Amino acid sequence: MKRAMWFLDQREMPTHWYNIQADLPEPLPPTLNPVTKEPVTLEFMNVLFPIECIKQEINTTDRFIEIPDEVQEVYRTWRPTVLHRAYRLEKALDTPAKIFYKYEGTNQAGSHKPNTAVAQAYYNKAEGVRRVTTETGAGQWGSALALAGAFFGVEVKVYMVRISYDQKPYRRIAIETWGAKVVPSPSPDTKVGREMLAKWPDCPGSLGFAISEAIEEAVGRDDTHYSLGSVVNHVLLHQTIIGEETRKQMVMADAYPDIIVGCIGGGSNFAGQFLPWIRDKISGKKKDMRIICVEPESCPSVTKGVYAFDYGDACGMGPIIKMYTLGHGFIPPPVHAGGLRYHGMAPIICHLHKLGFIEAVAVPQTKAFEAGIQFARTEGIISGPEPCHNLKVAIDEALKCKESGESKTILIAHSGHGHFDLGAYDEYLSGRLQDYEYPREAIEKALAELPKVE
Amino acid sequence: MKRAMWFLDQREMPTHWYNIQADLPEPLPPTLNPVTKEPVTLEFMNVLFPIECIKQEINTTDRFIEIPDEVQEVYRTWRPTVLHRAYRLEKALDTPAKIFYKYEGTNQAGSHKPNTAVAQAYYNKAEGVRRVTTETGAGQWGSALALAGAFFGVEVKVYMVRISYDQKPYRRIAIETWGAKVVPSPSPDTKVGREMLAKWPDCPGSLGFAISEAIEEAVGRDDTHYSLGSVVNHVLLHQTIIGEETRKQMVMADAYPDIIVGCIGGGSNFAGQFLPWIRDKISGKKKDMRIICVEPESCPSVTKGVYAFDYGDACGMGPIIKMYTLGHGFIPPPVHAGGLRYHGMAPIICHLHKLGFIEAVAVPQTKAFEAGIQFARTEGIISGPEPCHNLKVAIDEALKCKESGESKTILIAHSGHGHFDLGAYDEYLSGRLQDYEYPREAIEKALAELPKVE
Repeated sequence: MKRAMWFLDQREMPTHWYNIQADLPEPLPPTLNPVTKEPVTLEFMNVLFPIECIKQEINTTDRFIEIPDEVQEVYRTWRPTVLHRAYRLEKALDTPAKIFYKYEGTNQAGSHKPNTAVAQAYYNKAEGVRRVTTETGAGQWGSALALAGAFFGVEVKVYMVRISYDQKPYRRIAIETWGAKVVPSPSPDTKVGREMLAKWPDCPGSLGFAISEAIEEAVGRDDTHYSLGSVVNHVLLHQTIIGEETRKQMVMADAYPDIIVGCIGGGSNFAGQFLPWIRDKISGKKKDMRIICVEPESCPSVTKGVYAFDYGDACGMGPIIKMYTLGHGFIPPPVHAGGLRYHGMAPIICHLHKLGFIEAVAVPQTKAFEAGIQFARTEGIISGPEPCHNLKVAIDEALKCKESGESKTILIAHSGHGHFDLGAYDEYLSGRLQDYEYPREAIEKALAELPKVE
Repeated sequence: MKRAMWFLDQREMPTHWYNIQADLPEPLPPTLNPVTKEPVTLEFMNVLFPIECIKQEINTTDRFIEIPDEVQEVYRTWRPTVLHRAYRLEKALDTPAKIFYKYEGTNQAGSHKPNTAVAQAYYNKAEGVRRVTTETGAGQWGSALALAGAFFGVEVKVYMVRISYDQKPYRRIAIETWGAKVVPSPSPDTKVGREMLAKWPDCPGSLGFAISEAIEEAVGRDDTHYSLGSVVNHVLLHQTIIGEETRKQMVMADAYPDIIVGCIGGGSNFAGQFLPWIRDKISGKKKDMRIICVEPESCPSVTKGVYAFDYGDACGMGPIIKMYTLGHGFIPPPVHAGGLRYHGMAPIICHLHKLGFIEAVAVPQTKAFEAGIQFARTEGIISGPEPCHNLKVAIDEALKCKESGESKTILIAHSGHGHFDLGAYDEYLSGRLQDYEYPREAIEKALAELPKVE
């Protein structure tokens, strides 16, 4: 009987991450210090991140970077993840397209996030830092870092956006189950938090504010670093394990993707899949490969933002990076795909888009969930709200194949399950789920406040 | 680097279920009609179940039964599941024991239940029955049958215990996401339901009552069958895919189990793992293999019940079977392991216990969760409350090895994740989780009401 899943023996697991910076036709723009607006120094970055991660951040020469044995050993509790062929979805769509999906939802935390969380926890521990802070909104990243902390004996403190802390207790409990500390943000643990609580005791918090608290604590304590779950180069690097595995699995399946589809919030999951493929497009080996980034209509950084230098965080405490941005002060409408509600985008993705190697499309959340339901009723998996966006575009592309009669190979980067997002499915199923009007005014206002950079 | 996971290529996936009945040294006692108390007829059973399942139920000759192609095709959306080596737990315990676990939590519904749900949905559809009813408590079984219904285009109606329906909306929504209908039980859809609601409008319901409603609807409609998620022989048969896969994977890992541990509620998950191994014990090939069934102290059918003929359901509408029972009227204390709150036990398991091939042990839920936390912080996985019980006993056995210095191989039958059970973890972590006093009086009362059978 034909295979619908391709496993990769652990003895064949990739031992290196792929560093796209070595293959870029033009180098990335510099990262700037938020105060001096000069290129950041290693010392500045080292207050927040381990040296090894900073070296990876700026490495433009090594195409492949070895995954430390200790990290590989932890990867082996859930990796390689499975490559699936969506035969049942293909049949339902009556399409000649071949639809594959690489699924990152089977690990302990349920998304791609642990791929970088364990690497960051390891590098911190290896450099003697036994404590890290971070922020989390809906909780995927906080869960992943808590899990990684348990694996490496690193203490983790998570600032969780207050409204999520109250409304999504399961993610909070998962973080505690792995032994991490989680506090609602704004919290009395930081200066900015105390000031906010004095002004607004019931403040529901925001991701930007939680980042500021996590950074304040890390900057203020010698024993503590800060950990970031997306956007920056070293995070994308760690995620390339996904695409490196997929390349081997596609060989097993005797297939090669014509189209790769993934959703982008900060961009790390999708980059983890497509970066190992895009080298074939850059080198000219597979020029016609299409790489489609999918974002929510409510937070369309690439499709509607401007390519400019902006703060990565909401409060202007972190580095300034060149990216497609809606303005660091922009607060997107409360769509369910919390992981896609980011004002900017990974610089690597923006750069590749600017160079013409990738395209982007925006999707309203009702259409995303419609696709998610179709996927659940054919392939079975209940997807997170974020990957529902890819599913919508993958289905559209498969239906185009039906019209044209072309048997294209579509590869979906599926970031994880929706077990903690069933409230959103309930809204869709009961007809209560809404789309938001395009937030033009809020975006224009935020774009007027980009930092001035020479 | 050494492997911690063993995948089984889909081309090597077992194509047959294992039928223990062909290898039993003594046949099972008969199943009786609840009214006549005579052995049930095929016609009686066919009101509820498809003919193929009934044939499997009474098949004592074929050791292996082929899995229909259509079922294998659906299995291939998530099977074979992975065999893990718990290196990190071993290290934390500092034990010379080798701990393996076969994990059924990665499928779309998150437990072993779909293994039989898809088979039952298929057989019903193949016999022209396009509609099935069932009951669910915490929702694992309802989820699995809803998923199976989506795969085969079979309409599924789930009577969900009212208190779970209200308290666990996520399971209810998952069932609806797969397209099934779910109503709180007691419901106005049945005669028994309407009578109950008239007497007690706010009745929280019970699993026994929900079974009665599901059976009443199936009996009353020609187009509808009833579907059962555990206990009976054909359900255990369908679950043997777990152990058949594990046998192949243990060969890959160059290991053979000395001890197999699993939790038992109705018994289907654990039987699915150990039945394919116990044939080596029955045949004398591996006489000293220990098979340990773990039950909750609050519902200790095998360790404290009597071996007698009793109703499988709470209301006496279903067949009478010989089993270890606490009395069909016994309502266990509300421990979190909803899947282990069953008054009886699969007849096959009881028979094998009576013949001396398997042993049983009871565990209090606080100890189970303690083990679950240790597992989460070493292996990462947040386990359902049910498999936490096995983890406790597996850890105990591993610690005995530490004392004796023996390097035994322990195989854990891990039935699934606890993503919808985090409230229980929260209780444990915050010190609110309690154990219940042994419900001696309730059990004695229930045992006084066993059906009279000649």
